Amino acid sequence: MKGEIFYLDNAATSFPKPRSVILGVSDCLSNYCGNAGRGSHRLALLAAQKIYQCREEICSLVGADASENVVFVPSCTYGLNMLIKGILKQGDHVLISDMEHNSVYRPIKKLADEGRITYDIFNFLSTEDKSPEALGSEIEHRIKPRTRLIICAHQSNICSLSVPVDKIGEICRKNHILFALDTAQSIGHAPIDMKKMNIDFLVAPSHKSLYGPQGCGFVVFNSKEILDTLVEGGSGINSLDGEMPRDIPDRFEAGTLPLPSIAGLYEGIREVRSLGIDTISSHERGLFRLLRDGLMTIRGATVYMPEHEGNTLLFNIGDIPCTEVGAFLDSRGICVRSGFHCAALAHRSLGTEKRGAVRASFGIFNSHRDVEHLLTACREISIR
Amino acid sequence: MKGEIFYLDNAATSFPKPRSVILGVSDCLSNYCGNAGRGSHRLALLAAQKIYQCREEICSLVGADASENVVFVPSCTYGLNMLIKGILKQGDHVLISDMEHNSVYRPIKKLADEGRITYDIFNFLSTEDKSPEALGSEIEHRIKPRTRLIICAHQSNICSLSVPVDKIGEICRKNHILFALDTAQSIGHAPIDMKKMNIDFLVAPSHKSLYGPQGCGFVVFNSKEILDTLVEGGSGINSLDGEMPRDIPDRFEAGTLPLPSIAGLYEGIREVRSLGIDTISSHERGLFRLLRDGLMTIRGATVYMPEHEGNTLLFNIGDIPCTEVGAFLDSRGICVRSGFHCAALAHRSLGTEKRGAVRASFGIFNSHRDVEHLLTACREISIR
Repeated sequence: MKGEIFYLDNAATSFPKPRSVILGVSDCLSNYCGNAGRGSHRLALLAAQKIYQCREEICSLVGADASENVVFVPSCTYGLNMLIKGILKQGDHVLISDMEHNSVYRPIKKLADEGRITYDIFNFLSTEDKSPEALGSEIEHRIKPRTRLIICAHQSNICSLSVPVDKIGEICRKNHILFALDTAQSIGHAPIDMKKMNIDFLVAPSHKSLYGPQGCGFVVFNSKEILDTLVEGGSGINSLDGEMPRDIPDRFEAGTLPLPSIAGLYEGIREVRSLGIDTISSHERGLFRLLRDGLMTIRGATVYMPEHEGNTLLFNIGDIPCTEVGAFLDSRGICVRSGFHCAALAHRSLGTEKRGAVRASFGIFNSHRDVEHLLTACREISIR
Repeated sequence: MKGEIFYLDNAATSFPKPRSVILGVSDCLSNYCGNAGRGSHRLALLAAQKIYQCREEICSLVGADASENVVFVPSCTYGLNMLIKGILKQGDHVLISDMEHNSVYRPIKKLADEGRITYDIFNFLSTEDKSPEALGSEIEHRIKPRTRLIICAHQSNICSLSVPVDKIGEICRKNHILFALDTAQSIGHAPIDMKKMNIDFLVAPSHKSLYGPQGCGFVVFNSKEILDTLVEGGSGINSLDGEMPRDIPDRFEAGTLPLPSIAGLYEGIREVRSLGIDTISSHERGLFRLLRDGLMTIRGATVYMPEHEGNTLLFNIGDIPCTEVGAFLDSRGICVRSGFHCAALAHRSLGTEKRGAVRASFGIFNSHRDVEHLLTACREISIR
């Protein structure tokens, strides 16, 4: 690490990466980065084998049936677009939450602006009562005859609030609605069992709390729906056919997969599974409480959603612009993200759409020392 | 490298990677893999700086104006889909060549099957006369009032035949048609000057002859057209806006970019530019001639398009199935690709759509020894 860095921006991308991830990527680039499914020579086969191993790790992580249900995508954003555009047909209605990231909100809004779909937003971040029952009736109230999909973030990307997934899954099953979950901020922090939770589609990035490289994500299918494709191209199989294969994962994996990132992701998931989700989550909650309680003693500091403990804490200090706080923290070697975090809806729900806020987010490599250092700097800027 | 490998599958993906590429990726993962444009702390800025440097290298490589004209995409396939779906509107007509890869053919065919566009295929690989003039009249003959785009491969992915880019550029300019060039098989082998050649959009992958990692590609814009987006999401800027920014590159770079791959690509391009395209090309032509002339002495061997010398050579041996030849070569440590190479159109044009063929493709790390070894193995299988 360069200089002395206190990295608290793990919700944007995790840093540092585990040694095993860096070595896994290097090993791939040095020794076997053939093109899987394009040729049957040994390097292509070694590449295919690593991809298969990573699919298996993902299955174990999220309780999926079989490796072929795992589709590799370039990013979580791509995966969400692929689902939204692959599932929704002319005239369909879709429900999203009031804490969506722009990777859900923007594609949905675009389809709606083009007159292809309609959508409604169910309230959760902005409501008083956050019980599963209250959310349940809020959602059921908004279901329409053409509601085909509920797609939402498992956890907000600006605080640690999570939706009760079981409840949404139950509603979807009862109403024959597809359920797609964006786990960008929850994967690796919260236990997920797709089948038990009735999640039809799960999307996740490699580079956040699975500690893999940027440039990879995955969509896990727990549904037999045949979706439209977003991108078509070479699939390695059925080359003479003008159409994409019907079977997953090939149907959605046109072009060359990001093998080195997949090799890194494989190692990252193994690190996470070896530490254990519970251990990780309880470590991060400890840091959250330390930071929250410390900030509470600073005059003028506001912590948003302080009762929802987890890996992400959003705050402001007095009326100091959040970007100024961010810049000051950077001058102390502290990396956080200030502003609006690509989440228009969520900031609106929280009432911070005018001024934005400072987000500190934890990972497995953070310690009490990082939080103490952040608190010291916050105290300093609060009395300047 | 594991065991003794004679890697001649560089058209699928290049191997080995230069040391600088492997180290560049490791350095990124170890030291600065922040999330560019998401936060203004030092790691996010270092990430942004590397991305900017890579954009500059790409500009120098293809004769583009400014770094903001370079859009990073996850793959060449994605870039081609982004252009095809971003440019073409209801009722438009598009021209492609008879040697397209499925990454152009499949998305075009899909749009046509949905009744959204029409397309025609101009002949080149399948014609006797391959002069620019003959191609020119073939193309002009097929232009319709609604022809909006010509999109084609610079070089075939199954042999070394290239289209005369200047001529197509000239026709496009004259007829006010947009020109998009798929350089998957030519970038790093052939000199390209987008402005001189009147190429409006150029697409390339990182992992072939630019020696970068898999999981990255780029589209270079030499046009002010505002295209529709294929994917929407977080753009780091204008977070509160429900729509993607209008300006490139942000408009097309939703989500987190594949930074480690970009860092590797940067090093790969530097290697290529430092060796020089002419040197690389003449090295590969030398290997092509050696292999072609050697194969010609083997009874029953067929070399396709033998007079078009370059980095890729397609052949068959007698009536031995190409997959059998491929498997035999692999048993001798030789990596080639047998079959149909995701190129239905091209194999049809060449008359090999029934049996496929064996493709050997060269890169900067190949030597005469690789070719001699391949020839020895081919002789062996030819007399079994």
